[in-house]
Amino acid sequence: MPHSTLILVLNGPNLNLLGTRETDIYGTHSLADIEASVRQRAADAGLAVEFHQSNSEAQLVDWVQGARDRAAGLIVNAGAYTHTSVALLDALRAVDLPIVEVHLSNIFRREEFRHHSYVSQAATGMISGFGPQSYDLAVDALSSLIKNA
Amino acid sequence: MPHSTLILVLNGPNLNLLGTRETDIYGTHSLADIEASVRQRAADAGLAVEFHQSNSEAQLVDWVQGARDRAAGLIVNAGAYTHTSVALLDALRAVDLPIVEVHLSNIFRREEFRHHSYVSQAATGMISGFGPQSYDLAVDALSSLIKNA
Amino acid sequence: MPHSTLILVLNGPNLNLLGTRETDIYGTHSLADIEASVRQRAADAGLAVEFHQSNSEAQLVDWVQGARDRAAGLIVNAGAYTHTSVALLDALRAVDLPIVEVHLSNIFRREEFRHHSYVSQAATGMISGFGPQSYDLAVDALSSLIKNA
Amino acid sequence: MPHSTLILVLNGPNLNLLGTRETDIYGTHSLADIEASVRQRAADAGLAVEFHQSNSEAQLVDWVQGARDRAAGLIVNAGAYTHTSVALLDALRAVDLPIVEVHLSNIFRREEFRHHSYVSQAATGMISGFGPQSYDLAVDALSSLIKNA
Amino acid sequence: MPHSTLILVLNGPNLNLLGTRETDIYGTHSLADIEASVRQRAADAGLAVEFHQSNSEAQLVDWVQGARDRAAGLIVNAGAYTHTSVALLDALRAVDLPIVEVHLSNIFRREEFRHHSYVSQAATGMISGFGPQSYDLAVDALSSLIKNA
Amino acid sequence: MPHSTLILVLNGPNLNLLGTRETDIYGTHSLADIEASVRQRAADAGLAVEFHQSNSEAQLVDWVQGARDRAAGLIVNAGAYTHTSVALLDALRAVDLPIVEVHLSNIFRREEFRHHSYVSQAATGMISGFGPQSYDLAVDALSSLIKNA
Amino acid sequence: MPHSTLILVLNGPNLNLLGTRETDIYGTHSLADIEASVRQRAADAGLAVEFHQSNSEAQLVDWVQGARDRAAGLIVNAGAYTHTSVALLDALRAVDLPIVEVHLSNIFRREEFRHHSYVSQAATGMISGFGPQSYDLAVDALSSLIKNA
Amino acid sequence: MPHSTLILVLNGPNLNLLGTRETDIYGTHSLADIEASVRQRAADAGLAVEFHQSNSEAQLVDWVQGARDRAAGLIVNAGAYTHTSVALLDALRAVDLPIVEVHLSNIFRREEFRHHSYVSQAATGMISGFGPQSYDLAVDALSSLIKNA
Amino acid sequence: MPHSTLILVLNGPNLNLLGTRETDIYGTHSLADIEASVRQRAADAGLAVEFHQSNSEAQLVDWVQGARDRAAGLIVNAGAYTHTSVALLDALRAVDLPIVEVHLSNIFRREEFRHHSYVSQAATGMISGFGPQSYDLAVDALSSLIKNA
Amino acid sequence: MPHSTLILVLNGPNLNLLGTRETDIYGTHSLADIEASVRQRAADAGLAVEFHQSNSEAQLVDWVQGARDRAAGLIVNAGAYTHTSVALLDALRAVDLPIVEVHLSNIFRREEFRHHSYVSQAATGMISGFGPQSYDLAVDALSSLIKNA
Amino acid sequence: MPHSTLILVLNGPNLNLLGTRETDIYGTHSLADIEASVRQRAADAGLAVEFHQSNSEAQLVDWVQGARDRAAGLIVNAGAYTHTSVALLDALRAVDLPIVEVHLSNIFRREEFRHHSYVSQAATGMISGFGPQSYDLAVDALSSLIKNA
Amino acid sequence: MPHSTLILVLNGPNLNLLGTRETDIYGTHSLADIEASVRQRAADAGLAVEFHQSNSEAQLVDWVQGARDRAAGLIVNAGAYTHTSVALLDALRAVDLPIVEVHLSNIFRREEFRHHSYVSQAATGMISGFGPQSYDLAVDALSSLIKNA
Repeated sequence: MPHSTLILVLNGPNLNLLGTRETDIYGTHSLADIEASVRQRAADAGLAVEFHQSNSEAQLVDWVQGARDRAAGLIVNAGAYTHTSVALLDALRAVDLPIVEVHLSNIFRREEFRHHSYVSQAATGMISGFGPQSYDLAVDALSSLIKNA
Repeated sequence: MPHSTLILVLNGPNLNLLGTRETDIYGTHSLADIEASVRQRAADAGLAVEFHQSNSEAQLVDWVQGARDRAAGLIVNAGAYTHTSVALLDALRAVDLPIVEVHLSNIFRREEFRHHSYVSQAATGMISGFGPQSYDLAVDALSSLIKNA
Repeated sequence: MPHSTLILVLNGPNLNLLGTRETDIYGTHSLADIEASVRQRAADAGLAVEFHQSNSEAQLVDWVQGARDRAAGLIVNAGAYTHTSVALLDALRAVDLPIVEVHLSNIFRREEFRHHSYVSQAATGMISGFGPQSYDLAVDALSSLIKNA
Repeated sequence: MPHSTLILVLNGPNLNLLGTRETDIYGTHSLADIEASVRQRAADAGLAVEFHQSNSEAQLVDWVQGARDRAAGLIVNAGAYTHTSVALLDALRAVDLPIVEVHLSNIFRREEFRHHSYVSQAATGMISGFGPQSYDLAVDALSSLIKNA
Repeated sequence: MPHSTLILVLNGPNLNLLGTRETDIYGTHSLADIEASVRQRAADAGLAVEFHQSNSEAQLVDWVQGARDRAAGLIVNAGAYTHTSVALLDALRAVDLPIVEVHLSNIFRREEFRHHSYVSQAATGMISGFGPQSYDLAVDALSSLIKNA
Repeated sequence: MPHSTLILVLNGPNLNLLGTRETDIYGTHSLADIEASVRQRAADAGLAVEFHQSNSEAQLVDWVQGARDRAAGLIVNAGAYTHTSVALLDALRAVDLPIVEVHLSNIFRREEFRHHSYVSQAATGMISGFGPQSYDLAVDALSSLIKNA
Repeated sequence: MPHSTLILVLNGPNLNLLGTRETDIYGTHSLADIEASVRQRAADAGLAVEFHQSNSEAQLVDWVQGARDRAAGLIVNAGAYTHTSVALLDALRAVDLPIVEVHLSNIFRREEFRHHSYVSQAATGMISGFGPQSYDLAVDALSSLIKNA
Repeated sequence: MPHSTLILVLNGPNLNLLGTRETDIYGTHSLADIEASVRQRAADAGLAVEFHQSNSEAQLVDWVQGARDRAAGLIVNAGAYTHTSVALLDALRAVDLPIVEVHLSNIFRREEFRHHSYVSQAATGMISGFGPQSYDLAVDALSSLIKNA
Repeated sequence: MPHSTLILVLNGPNLNLLGTRETDIYGTHSLADIEASVRQRAADAGLAVEFHQSNSEAQLVDWVQGARDRAAGLIVNAGAYTHTSVALLDALRAVDLPIVEVHLSNIFRREEFRHHSYVSQAATGMISGFGPQSYDLAVDALSSLIKNA
Repeated sequence: MPHSTLILVLNGPNLNLLGTRETDIYGTHSLADIEASVRQRAADAGLAVEFHQSNSEAQLVDWVQGARDRAAGLIVNAGAYTHTSVALLDALRAVDLPIVEVHLSNIFRREEFRHHSYVSQAATGMISGFGPQSYDLAVDALSSLIKNA
Repeated sequence: MPHSTLILVLNGPNLNLLGTRETDIYGTHSLADIEASVRQRAADAGLAVEFHQSNSEAQLVDWVQGARDRAAGLIVNAGAYTHTSVALLDALRAVDLPIVEVHLSNIFRREEFRHHSYVSQAATGMISGFGPQSYDLAVDALSSLIKNA
Repeated sequence: MPHSTLILVLNGPNLNLLGTRETDIYGTHSLADIEASVRQRAADAGLAVEFHQSNSEAQLVDWVQGARDRAAGLIVNAGAYTHTSVALLDALRAVDLPIVEVHLSNIFRREEFRHHSYVSQAATGMISGFGPQSYDLAVDALSSLIKNA
């Protein structure tokens, strides 16, 4: 197991609205609910958490870059930037850490333009479609990846 | 008619240069000219105006999110982000308000990549090609949408 | 301002059924309702109106050709021919007048084959998605175009 | 069973030439032969028939529109307009009646551009490839649809 | 008329669930109901019936091959294999018999990947969209094809 | 040489405007100028001429059908219908006569959608890009085809 | 929580070779290793397990159909049939149960033809890229889905 | 030269009909004729032969898997599964043996959907278009590959 | 009329075989026959002729370049290079002369890859489908173009 | 068997470098090695050989044309021209002889643009992927084709 | 030579990581190394340098806009935004200055989505693939462009 | 630094016309002007130059092949063959030398078919759009590549 026990959980644009918008797609849990659950689950696994959300592609890139020398792994729900951001892909590729891609909804049953993910090109694996539970599963997945690294 | 009488007019990247760049496409009016005309026309319709411009996708998303509990409707000229921003589309969908998409030029007579609009997927309607008058028409359209909401 | 004060409002196939078919898409106003509103608004702007509807592509082409020496501008809702008629595009291009393209519904949120418009290739601008109000806005837009011509 | 017992059988461009052109594809029966067979079969099912052919897209649209308040169902062989007419599709959608699409030849074994049908988007079902018998089967199909409506 | 009076009715994957799954698309009749109706109608036309269903592409190919020296014609509802099985197409082409392709639903109003049929490349004709009645019409169509062979 | 010495020269939509619209593309000769030249050249070759123009697809189809038992060959400039009319293609295919496709402009140097011609699928050959001379060359070409038929 | 506590874990073609083929992609664990881990984890969650593997598309369809009245949920790693089997999609859609799609490798970083999944069209969610751990996460995910059903 | 001298010759769907169907494409030799020739040629090269045919994709996958520890090489004519079976490709990739892809006809001169081969992605080489001789050449090719392995 | 009265007639690969290969497509006249006819017709129009054929793309480019200061116009049948040679297109564009593209067969009724012509991008017009007569018509067309230049 | 016993073996661009470039793809045998092997094998079959290589498309076309009256068959490895030369295809089609297409590497496992072969459109069959042995197999294949012609 | 001697060198997302990430693609030089070299080379040419890097699309747009009245030219390595940013393209088009596009790696030998550049639509020229030297060459190129402006 | 100090500068079709054709695209410098400048610049860098131009794809391939044992690097402006020649790509790949691709114009702002370069697949880097200066920059780039090799 690596020295760091810190994981970063990065959330992209509009995820701050969670629980208030389009609840038929995204459910009624807020991002704070998810953060609480993630922190609990990570603590149980002996991992510390930095949990961020931003509507800014650049901010997300900055956080990813900043993880390079400090973190043990990343959980990334890039929201809309999943489908459009080559910049984020390049940042993730520059990070030599395990990366778990997360989506609340099953992106493959939505609009055609959401079927392609740049994040997937750099991620170890993807968990998609389980609502807030996607994050919990991601913590478990990342925890194992870190331990087996 | 809803409680709020506030409308937001959001302008995307490079619209701050209006009147100074590529005047054969965009005309010689500045964005300040347009703002003045919009404010007058909105006032006549009993509507207050917040008028913004930004080159930042994230800033535009923030403004759209901020409109949710305060505004009665949006006029959006997303400029280049019209064609590339899924983040903006998601923000607009999260806003349960009438939205009028505006373009100064007729985007369908320009380059192929300008023929597709993500904003259209969330907008009530589009007004495109009438130069600064596009905004005036948009105020009228939005005013009606708000009154009939 | 040009000599003529006549504008033509041309309506394509199936618009005669307006208010009776697929009211969830097209609303409950009849074409006669729209004509009355257009006539009033045009009169206020000092413009005379010829208002036509036809299911025939050739008839629409004929009307456009006939506008060349008599009219000051055109409002065109070509209905289904919007998407299929190169003949109509060629006729519109042969007319050296301002042209406003109108659609009741937001064509960009409907079937894929309605996302492309041949009319747009010849129109000054497009107004789409505001129901019958699209026509009123088009009268205003055309009136300005004529005055500034 | 609805009040009307009238069915319309609409035939598109060049079907008037039936039995005289490209007999290897379309067979040797004339359209009059088909009409006679259809009338007989419909009469047996207690249905009256209006049988039309036109080379004009607008005429076909007119007939479809005219069926709205009078007929119990439609049989449509739109010929070449099957593949190109959005106007016809819109008219058929505006008719709240059962519609049977008919083709003499198996359109899926012919040129690529004949593999797509706009009529199918509005039809209850399709019968294709049985020559004149396609019409007889269509009468049977429509008769059942009307009785079960 | 050929010596054999036997027709094979072949049903592909998941058709055994008929009447129990997705009844909004496929209706409430079971495959047994359809078989009974087909048998009756075929008997009236002097035809014997072998009626099969399988979830196996290979089994369907075997049945088609086995029809070569015994049957007078085939009715084929290949279900999902309609869209994916070149093997079935090749088997059908090797059979020098009239073939009627059948679908319960109108496949052209469903997902894009159901718009293409390999079976059509080998079938005399297609009947699609009339629910269980599609089979009855297919018996009639095949009966005529056999008699006129 | 066949019995008939009659040739039909059919002109599609907007060709009646020739010499008055987009003269940079289509030149300054009127359709009447072309007709005169065609008549002279045909007369020199011992051929009679019927010369038609229509904006109606159906009318063009009717004229083609009507040529079947009367004419020795066709010259067709279908204008915009060149690119969209399967109906016209089917009519031309039903005519067992030599057909010369004509275009004033070089359609391959114009918009992408003008690069495909349905008429070509039925024509013996094409002459494109020589302005009014295209018709003169077409008369010569057709004259030879008729004499060698 | 539903009555049944049975879950089915279905494995498609070539997964029986796990641990012996292309270990750089699929790792060194055998399918028996995975089964043992799944059984343990499911037992901890109070769930019974049926664990199957087959190279046959039909067999997989049969198992899915058989789950309808007996099981509480499915875990599906369809292997190559993920990308080609509409039959499996149809079977999964006919099952009104939570479905978790699983992949050992990150299919989005492999060949283009593995980027599309028919299974995704029917699955609640997907877990992809974590090797054998993908199955453990799937058990957790499915367990939650069943409890919250 | 490896220990095993066994080669497997696997034949896909409909090849059992060889010599009886579409003889203009596939010739008049039966699969038994081919088997005899292959056995003779292999014997001359000191190779033993297992010769199989199946209409079942799963059966073919099973045979390929079974070859892993027993055979020295494979000759594969997958018939229609050539173009559709990712499962077969995966099985072939899991076999660390020389593989010769065979086709009787020149698949590149047939329908578009036969121009792509999944088998090619795993095969050492392809021999296509020489009728039954393709198999003889394949034995020679495989014999060399085995000797040079 | 320009000073030069010289025209070049350039023929691409395999046209030297004319009259001996695929006579169903290209007819039975040899290239020498065509040359004789072209020379006669050009002489009648007061034009001198250089007539060339080559299988070499570079040779054709050289001839085109050489025409720049000597010739009054070009007739080009580039054969297969019509569809593949950007080099020839660039050479033709560098020549400020009228260019007539010629084809013996109607290239639009042949394989898909023959439907696109690079030569058309530089030619004044095209004459296609009239066999050897295509050349005669081209001389007439070029003669007029030169006289009107 | 035909009169001629001569076969031509034609090699396209860069094959003269064989054994010296990209040996991981093309192996270490030189073209001279291959020529020697081909000559031996052909001699054993009673066939004479002309063996050529050129980097020039025109030269290859010339050799193919020259084979028409002298040779009994061709073996063609067109190298890069396989994928780009319509001129070569036309030449091969003009030759009424058996043609065997040869490739050293398995072109279907290389770049996308090497998956399409114009040569295949004219060849009897293809042998691809066996290195120098591809030529030996081609001699055998061609020898049989000639004897059975 | 224009009044200003200032050039802007703009670097997009993740270029701040240069020398630390994916050194097989981007090399081991840091961005500071490049800046030093650029400053030296520009100084030699009498040019002043502003050298910027940002992960923010908006910041890059701002810098470009700010160059309009101050700078003599731009060197732009937009990194990932090269391929996705229409906003940057619009900003560059609004600047009436020479623009040199720079890339460290040869973008045409990387992933498909890196083959298209929006920056190229506005740049005078591109220098790609020479590592840090690309910048030095860009200074030379821009220096010449400025002197010759 | 390698033993050889020779560089080859290869120019493709129509570049011999430089300075005389389409000067708006290619400028007014002749190829001799460029050669002189290249020779001077190379001499300054201690490099000898062979400077060639040909309209022949084969000649270019020959020159590239000939560079293998003699030269230290190549500068290649393949003109139109940039976009069409796989043969040239293969030759360049066979040369284990640094290669600089050069274009006078910015090929990405010209026709769509000029946006793809086969040469790029083998080149170290590309310099495009600086007119004759492109060559000077290329000499500098190549000089560095050679020194650092």
